[in-house]
Amino acid sequence: MVIIASRKEVAQLAGVSEATVSRVLNGVGPIREETRQRVMEAAERLGYTPNALAQSFARRRSGNLGVVMPYLPKARIFSAYYFSEILSGIGSKALEGKYDLLMLFREPGGTMDYLNLFRTQKVDACIILGAKDEEGERAAIRQLSEGRHPYCLINQHFEGESFHVMDADHVEGSYEAVKHLIEQGFRRIAFLNGPPEYSNSRDRMSGYCRALEEAGIELDESLLFEGNFSRKSGFAAAEKVAARLKGIDAVFAANDRMAIGLQQGLRSMGVPEEEMPAFVGYDDSDAAELGAPPLTSVRVPFYELGCLAAEHVLGMLEQTPSSAVSRIPLHRKLPTRLVIRASSLKRK
Amino acid sequence: MVIIASRKEVAQLAGVSEATVSRVLNGVGPIREETRQRVMEAAERLGYTPNALAQSFARRRSGNLGVVMPYLPKARIFSAYYFSEILSGIGSKALEGKYDLLMLFREPGGTMDYLNLFRTQKVDACIILGAKDEEGERAAIRQLSEGRHPYCLINQHFEGESFHVMDADHVEGSYEAVKHLIEQGFRRIAFLNGPPEYSNSRDRMSGYCRALEEAGIELDESLLFEGNFSRKSGFAAAEKVAARLKGIDAVFAANDRMAIGLQQGLRSMGVPEEEMPAFVGYDDSDAAELGAPPLTSVRVPFYELGCLAAEHVLGMLEQTPSSAVSRIPLHRKLPTRLVIRASSLKRK
Repeated sequence: MVIIASRKEVAQLAGVSEATVSRVLNGVGPIREETRQRVMEAAERLGYTPNALAQSFARRRSGNLGVVMPYLPKARIFSAYYFSEILSGIGSKALEGKYDLLMLFREPGGTMDYLNLFRTQKVDACIILGAKDEEGERAAIRQLSEGRHPYCLINQHFEGESFHVMDADHVEGSYEAVKHLIEQGFRRIAFLNGPPEYSNSRDRMSGYCRALEEAGIELDESLLFEGNFSRKSGFAAAEKVAARLKGIDAVFAANDRMAIGLQQGLRSMGVPEEEMPAFVGYDDSDAAELGAPPLTSVRVPFYELGCLAAEHVLGMLEQTPSSAVSRIPLHRKLPTRLVIRASSLKRK
Repeated sequence: MVIIASRKEVAQLAGVSEATVSRVLNGVGPIREETRQRVMEAAERLGYTPNALAQSFARRRSGNLGVVMPYLPKARIFSAYYFSEILSGIGSKALEGKYDLLMLFREPGGTMDYLNLFRTQKVDACIILGAKDEEGERAAIRQLSEGRHPYCLINQHFEGESFHVMDADHVEGSYEAVKHLIEQGFRRIAFLNGPPEYSNSRDRMSGYCRALEEAGIELDESLLFEGNFSRKSGFAAAEKVAARLKGIDAVFAANDRMAIGLQQGLRSMGVPEEEMPAFVGYDDSDAAELGAPPLTSVRVPFYELGCLAAEHVLGMLEQTPSSAVSRIPLHRKLPTRLVIRASSLKRK
């Protein structure tokens, strides 16, 4: 066991009261410089480390920036390009601001009591990832807005609410992707989307529909498929896609993992390369560039989304609760960019 | 602002002292069941949330499992396969044990005062990643061992110390990789290793030397190159490798990122495919399978290393400081496995 000097011993050595020791070490209230010096010297001589919890308690701060993430049983969540890039961005800003990063996992199907994270001082600010558009979730986030707590959602927005949101333009991103496929001469374009509880899935559907409409192509609901953003769900969709393969020129998938999973699934079913549809993925993850053929994809600035959301919530912490930055909800939408590679080009 | 009921109000409503309220809510000391009931009801009626910091302070626990990671300026640390897989493993066990994950970044070049994380109760247990073999680092870890604190190193071991270590067998992994290249008929095998401050770099060197020796191939120091595990450092090594390319049949790289970076570097210098050396990478990351040609690599069970290290430290928390699990240093070494793909095969 380690022997730790107490506040009392520091007070005795410095010849001051324990309350004075606390005031000096917490930087609270007026203190004469001479007294401050004496206390600091005594603390140093005794190797006194103020207890972080006691210190945080006095300051009512944890020093933690919380990041709420969905928990997917058995999924390697940190290995997903989407989360790892966003976390890298958040981490870089947390470090700059001398905050530690506290990861909080949302139970599957459950709603997290976000307000309680602040009430119990687990976090000073928090960033919410993967929030589904459900009433429980909306209610939980509304409490944060009403309490003027420093929080921000990433990549999800909620119709009719005034939440702090850092998003990317998935309507435009999807529109550009599908328009590109149409320009290549493809007309029967299947769409492997994510679950509709996520706003970005609905945004992608809007972009897909807009591009078809503009080209005078009627929406064919039998070309719509759904996965859950995992490679596995893309692989599983192969059976349904293969059954309609003669009626499909190209596939637009809502992320690269599902696109790659679907390609692998079709290959494992014996679909020859010359019958494979054209492909466009989404996210422009590392895997896209390495694919065979390299995968056309939509680049989303996830790292920047993480940086900006962290900057926003840490900025709110510096403000008084009534200041503008806390009152006016943030709603930024960063642009996406289509990166064209071999997978989406018409074969000569 | 949110109005939060105080302990005093709960005490008044229940007709007990504030100390009794604390004892009930912290589960400390003997309490009559009737009193406990009365306090719980009063707390519920008033919506009293015991402050997490105050609660932790009383219990001397933070509820956090710390993970110390190297901070690499501008690097997207969570996006590295190595870290993301280990973190996914740790995260799954933290969740099971109802711990939150606190990420702590080690400043570049600096040593972290690990003991202070426990002294100040930032963490209840901690896992250390990327520890370099340097005297300051050894001293800091020794303090944890001496204080019987629940900690574990992953993928790094220290000669002559009795530290808790969860490692993989990189000597054997490298030996198998180089032996495979020799069996393919390659004899002039370049080695792009990581920095020697990491024990896994030195382990890989041992395996490389053993395989050469067994085959009667003399070690040629001009075939040894060094990177820092980044793709960029592999790309940068291309110039030196290209200068000696006529004398190189194959390359063994200490991770996939460096192997891929070196391949990209050689291609960007105009080296034609038929003059490219054979390649074996290390880690068997997602990128290996997707490479063109697919990259032979050494699979390391990073996810399992994370799970086991987390289980170990959380297990220590359940024990008394003098129990065997805390006293006897853990030193496990998991096996690796060579995954052979097209990149390392002799062209006919």
